[in-house]
Amino acid sequence: MARSRCIATVCLSGDLPDKLEAAAAVGFDGVEIFENDLLTFNGSPAEIRRLAADLGLSIPIFQPFRDFEAMPEPQRARNLDRAERKFDVMQALGTDLVLVCSNVQPAAIDDPARAAADLHEMAERAHRRGLRVGFEALAWGRHINRWRQAWDVVQRADHPALGLIVDSFHTLSINDDPAGIADLPGEKIFFVQLADAPRLDMDVLNWSRHFRNFPGQGQLDVAGFTRAVLDSGYAGPLSLEIFNDEFRAAPVRQTARDGLRSLILVESEARPTVAASALPPVSPCSGVEFLEFAVNEPVRGELAQFLGTLGFRLAGKHRSKAVELYRQGGVSLVLNAEPDSAAAGHFEMHGASVCAMALTVADAEATLARADALRCSTWYEPRGEGERPIPSLRAPDGSLVCLVENRPGERSFWEDDFFLIPGVDAAGPGLLSIDHVAQALTPGQMDGFVLFYRALFGMEPEGLWELPDPRGLVRSRAMVTPDRALRLPLNVSEARETATGRFVSAVAGAGVHHIAFLTEDAAATARQLAARGAPLLPIPENYYDDLEARFGLEPTRLDELKSLNLLHDQDAEGGVFTHAYTASFADRFFFEIVERRGGYRQFGAPNAGVRMAAQARYQARRQKV
Amino acid sequence: MARSRCIATVCLSGDLPDKLEAAAAVGFDGVEIFENDLLTFNGSPAEIRRLAADLGLSIPIFQPFRDFEAMPEPQRARNLDRAERKFDVMQALGTDLVLVCSNVQPAAIDDPARAAADLHEMAERAHRRGLRVGFEALAWGRHINRWRQAWDVVQRADHPALGLIVDSFHTLSINDDPAGIADLPGEKIFFVQLADAPRLDMDVLNWSRHFRNFPGQGQLDVAGFTRAVLDSGYAGPLSLEIFNDEFRAAPVRQTARDGLRSLILVESEARPTVAASALPPVSPCSGVEFLEFAVNEPVRGELAQFLGTLGFRLAGKHRSKAVELYRQGGVSLVLNAEPDSAAAGHFEMHGASVCAMALTVADAEATLARADALRCSTWYEPRGEGERPIPSLRAPDGSLVCLVENRPGERSFWEDDFFLIPGVDAAGPGLLSIDHVAQALTPGQMDGFVLFYRALFGMEPEGLWELPDPRGLVRSRAMVTPDRALRLPLNVSEARETATGRFVSAVAGAGVHHIAFLTEDAAATARQLAARGAPLLPIPENYYDDLEARFGLEPTRLDELKSLNLLHDQDAEGGVFTHAYTASFADRFFFEIVERRGGYRQFGAPNAGVRMAAQARYQARRQKV
Repeated sequence: MARSRCIATVCLSGDLPDKLEAAAAVGFDGVEIFENDLLTFNGSPAEIRRLAADLGLSIPIFQPFRDFEAMPEPQRARNLDRAERKFDVMQALGTDLVLVCSNVQPAAIDDPARAAADLHEMAERAHRRGLRVGFEALAWGRHINRWRQAWDVVQRADHPALGLIVDSFHTLSINDDPAGIADLPGEKIFFVQLADAPRLDMDVLNWSRHFRNFPGQGQLDVAGFTRAVLDSGYAGPLSLEIFNDEFRAAPVRQTARDGLRSLILVESEARPTVAASALPPVSPCSGVEFLEFAVNEPVRGELAQFLGTLGFRLAGKHRSKAVELYRQGGVSLVLNAEPDSAAAGHFEMHGASVCAMALTVADAEATLARADALRCSTWYEPRGEGERPIPSLRAPDGSLVCLVENRPGERSFWEDDFFLIPGVDAAGPGLLSIDHVAQALTPGQMDGFVLFYRALFGMEPEGLWELPDPRGLVRSRAMVTPDRALRLPLNVSEARETATGRFVSAVAGAGVHHIAFLTEDAAATARQLAARGAPLLPIPENYYDDLEARFGLEPTRLDELKSLNLLHDQDAEGGVFTHAYTASFADRFFFEIVERRGGYRQFGAPNAGVRMAAQARYQARRQKV
Repeated sequence: MARSRCIATVCLSGDLPDKLEAAAAVGFDGVEIFENDLLTFNGSPAEIRRLAADLGLSIPIFQPFRDFEAMPEPQRARNLDRAERKFDVMQALGTDLVLVCSNVQPAAIDDPARAAADLHEMAERAHRRGLRVGFEALAWGRHINRWRQAWDVVQRADHPALGLIVDSFHTLSINDDPAGIADLPGEKIFFVQLADAPRLDMDVLNWSRHFRNFPGQGQLDVAGFTRAVLDSGYAGPLSLEIFNDEFRAAPVRQTARDGLRSLILVESEARPTVAASALPPVSPCSGVEFLEFAVNEPVRGELAQFLGTLGFRLAGKHRSKAVELYRQGGVSLVLNAEPDSAAAGHFEMHGASVCAMALTVADAEATLARADALRCSTWYEPRGEGERPIPSLRAPDGSLVCLVENRPGERSFWEDDFFLIPGVDAAGPGLLSIDHVAQALTPGQMDGFVLFYRALFGMEPEGLWELPDPRGLVRSRAMVTPDRALRLPLNVSEARETATGRFVSAVAGAGVHHIAFLTEDAAATARQLAARGAPLLPIPENYYDDLEARFGLEPTRLDELKSLNLLHDQDAEGGVFTHAYTASFADRFFFEIVERRGGYRQFGAPNAGVRMAAQARYQARRQKV
């Protein structure tokens, strides 16, 4: 039987019925009832019990019970009375376990024996009612903040109705070693809570209350923690307990789905060889096979003309649909104007924009199986006779990620689905392949996207960049496959007037913000693009003066960069990045050409401020015209 | 002559011309040109010089020049070349001073003598061109992070073109003592930067880059720092340098105005007795004289009826306008339906809402003079013959704060302006006065409002509360006068579906979110309100079970609270707060009744989650109906 997967109601937005319905809908087995959600609910604990039962959800625990152990009198007696009242609630809820977290009160006595005696008394009272008590060390507990201390108290108390509760955040946030948990008797671990978090250099209480996220979304080794827990023989639920400002405000279904996905992923990472938790492996992805733009007939013409200035040429027409293929080097761009298609629906809702990204994978079926196990919904576009079925996944924003297998020697899906025009790849200004695809997300979507790309395609997040737009900060984090064949920078901005903010407002949601094409020689390519009338983004002269001061570039090289509106970055290892941007198409997406030399791995983030200021200026001028 | 007041361009949003125009428009004397703003500007340094000159702005400094001192070769030579390039820029800009901030590079050598030698060389080169160099210790500098270390290097270098730059944030953030700055020779301090910040327990670099704010908006002793600086005899500009995520995205004029206000305030706090910096004193405020609601004719009727259920009675009609006065105890509420008035304009833009808050001040003229000195705009409503002129200030959101003097023994402005109905105060359910007025702000407005109330009325900010709404966090901070006669909680929420988020969306901006009335006996008052049909917000039974568990209240008291939907809070000193809320009027503002016992000073924040969940439920039900 699969292990029970649970989520604390505090992870989810809305009122208690919203939370329970979402948890059940995405497939959780149970919910931790967070006390605050009970207090604000306008119905009895018995009603919650019924609601959960009707939804097929268990209630494995009620939490938290705070500031209990090792208090002086009269608080000690008061606390035991308080426990009895909460036992009443638990019995009405139909749960047998309460989480006691270590005392944070200044008045708490620093005496493990007293703590053990108090917990023994509470456990004894619980036992009489058929209930149990789990004791957890809070990372900021007054005297008890490590799991070994909590375990010591549980051992001293020595009561069958008292056990230990461990939490990955409380352990890993203070760099406590979870390895020893593996040596505990698994049946004395009464409950396990999992949370991840980005590594932040701040006080642990605020870090915990605002910045936790789901396993796989942060930087803690939650899989290692989970492995230690499972090695103990613990057979109870794995449960998510996340305090996160964005989750509190996010659509509840989306958060719940991300949560379940994170649990499935972390369990498989902790136990990759156990059948009940193992996932179908990640199928290697070798890059972007094509990008598909949702257009209508007039926009198709405009975009085709824009792409023409970048050297793209019509390379094929779909056999049964109003879909065109534009190509250059290894880059394929598809313009879909087919009425009544998924693309038409996308165009209706978001206007001209990328509606699908197709990835070249070694094994589409394996990827689909993994997606299915990770509760990712799939989609097949209706197709004509003889055309290739292209399986697709839904990204967290609802856009499509199509999966294409390209097996050497076999007929490609292009040949199946398109009337191809031969000889198109021959000439052109030198664009070779898609280097990266940058997406703009709405505030609150970053964690969900990071998890999606990690879980489905084995991509890893790179460092966070804070990019200064003239109207606010943009935060950027690239997801990359281990071999860097696929690179997807993700951008998000709380400010509405930044480049990212304007984009998500224009397309009413997340989407592809820009597409970068690799070239061997950015200067040669830029020169040809300029000759074709491509609208390259003008870069201010001051930028080049600073380049000279910072890097001491050769005057002829500097002049070349300046004349072609090329930007320059270099890394500490001698890698060099040369790139240029186009103006945006219809104030939406835009394109970039990039040249990488000497192993440069980044995306030219130090130049992003110059780019965004130039875009804001360009847009302001357009609006005046 | 008044001291020059400047602002760094990085404090302001937009492109460089936007920033310069805003700085000039609000009355700054000069701007620090932040290099990034120059690099992204599409025009030459000479054009910036002309632009600033045309606006009457000086450019006292160009900044920053990073990672200069104590580098090994060949970086040392490269840095001197880089300095020469930046000297070119400075000469084109027409500024003679550059800010060198202490080196953060791992490669930097820990040798003050080497640092001094390098800065001597740079100063000598600057000197040859008629330029100067200022050296500042960054709080996270590799080897130099305190002003005394920077001063030591400046002394060792001993060059007339080299001086010290001090910054309040870099000093106070690491708890360095600024007192000794007073003993420096003032002419060797080349420039002074001021910034405040909330006290946050996090790494200083991230704290500095995202959370600085203007003097008076945070918790650092910027006035004490400024006093030390001025005591040295420093005669140069005081200049603001703030890195703040919200400022980057805020309307530029508003930020600039707040900045200038903060500089004027901090200078007066540092030098209260110097004529050039002194401000007219704060005139004591004894509370809210009245609140004025913008209504139209149908809304007037509905609101009058709503107020009737709270026991308010019509107490007067304005002599010349469609304005009514409702009263109970010491509470005066004004309903303004006068066409073509400021209230009518407010109604047009924001719908039914509070358009003015009148404060009772000891000296309205003194308050106006202080407001004027603090660059606060004022307003007089047109009035009829014999009516009292009511001077008003514009709050940062554009709403009116009216100033009323009530001199004992003199005829009140109510008698001047209204036909009063006698005997109205006699009966009623016991509302005595306005206890507090809570305002909802849009994201980014908190700092500006804190500064406004501090600067104009001498109010001080209380601690920040994070309140859990079912749809996201609400942050709340109360401003209070020293005697607590005026209490104004300010609420803000990034999340759009919280109570605060819905409010600012409904009224299209900031505004009065709820009004709390003081009573001697909340239970008696609530009973009477219920009898009158006041729509009191229903509180869930679970809340009362928890009250019992937490506080062990007497069963009869608990039953009383429960039957009247009263909430209970108590503080560690035995103070008790009993309160209840009404449903909101037209899904906008609502009312609260509060009883304070035993010196309770807060606002019942632990109950806010229960209130907000009940409101969300109430609103959802209304929308269904």
